[in-house]
Amino acid sequence: MATEKTLNDLFLDTLKDIYFAEKQILKALPKMARAAQSEEGRAGFLKHRDETQGQIERLERVFELIGKPARGKTCDAIQGILAEGEEIMEEYKGSVALDAGLISAAQAVEHYEIARYGTLIAWAKQLGLKVAVPLLQATLAEEEATDKKLTQLAQVSANPKGKKAA
Amino acid sequence: MATEKTLNDLFLDTLKDIYFAEKQILKALPKMARAAQSEEGRAGFLKHRDETQGQIERLERVFELIGKPARGKTCDAIQGILAEGEEIMEEYKGSVALDAGLISAAQAVEHYEIARYGTLIAWAKQLGLKVAVPLLQATLAEEEATDKKLTQLAQVSANPKGKKAA
Repeated sequence: MATEKTLNDLFLDTLKDIYFAEKQILKALPKMARAAQSEEGRAGFLKHRDETQGQIERLERVFELIGKPARGKTCDAIQGILAEGEEIMEEYKGSVALDAGLISAAQAVEHYEIARYGTLIAWAKQLGLKVAVPLLQATLAEEEATDKKLTQLAQVSANPKGKKAA
Repeated sequence: MATEKTLNDLFLDTLKDIYFAEKQILKALPKMARAAQSEEGRAGFLKHRDETQGQIERLERVFELIGKPARGKTCDAIQGILAEGEEIMEEYKGSVALDAGLISAAQAVEHYEIARYGTLIAWAKQLGLKVAVPLLQATLAEEEATDKKLTQLAQVSANPKGKKAA
């Protein structure tokens, strides 16, 4: 008989989920940077690629803290979110709306991460994982800052050439 | 030759995406309510089901405003997010951590919606869709309020029976 599942199991499952997701995001960001038309967009995606590398390392420290091997678990959510981003890159290639679409895709990614890290922080506190909490909080702060920057970019780059989109 | 895609196309595509997503969420919420162990959880999911019905009607008004039929477009992202929620419901059925898992799944859904409505509002402003903006903002405010309530619930219901999860 399996023992009853606890919050420890849920924490570990969610850690594996976001670890898988971060690795997929790490692969997607250079593609988004290459696709971006504006210099700010390109630079922003590349900067976030570097941040993502650091976020993966923080997750590996959390795995270590709970004495488990760092292993991902297929995350259907991020696969769906990134598939929609790929679709936009194909369908809007060369159009004035491409960067707006890329920013929108990136914000969907950021919000997925914000949800997951928020949850992990709440659970880490309840489980008394005091060293894990600031690691997860540092990443959450980066994701929230990235989301804010994307919101600013969205104000200007929906229409990068100043053309009337309507 | 296809005409070049514009922000109008992107707005319509994203409207169809979130319209499909809201309809899937409408179906998922009663399942989540039935699964929830705590009364607050159950009541919260049912209340949000009613809100979602109103959000779908607002989207239909936005379709009307831009003179397009209200039609969804398969949204891989919400399908992936909801699939993860279903997995938690199965794997954590009957465990002390079930409600924590449900809340986590619901927050991933909320953040997807927050990202999409934020984007739609930015674009509606740029496209001069003045009547659409407050409709989309009303829904965004509801999603943000729901996310906040879920965060509060997450503080108490990860461990509903006061058992040590560790």
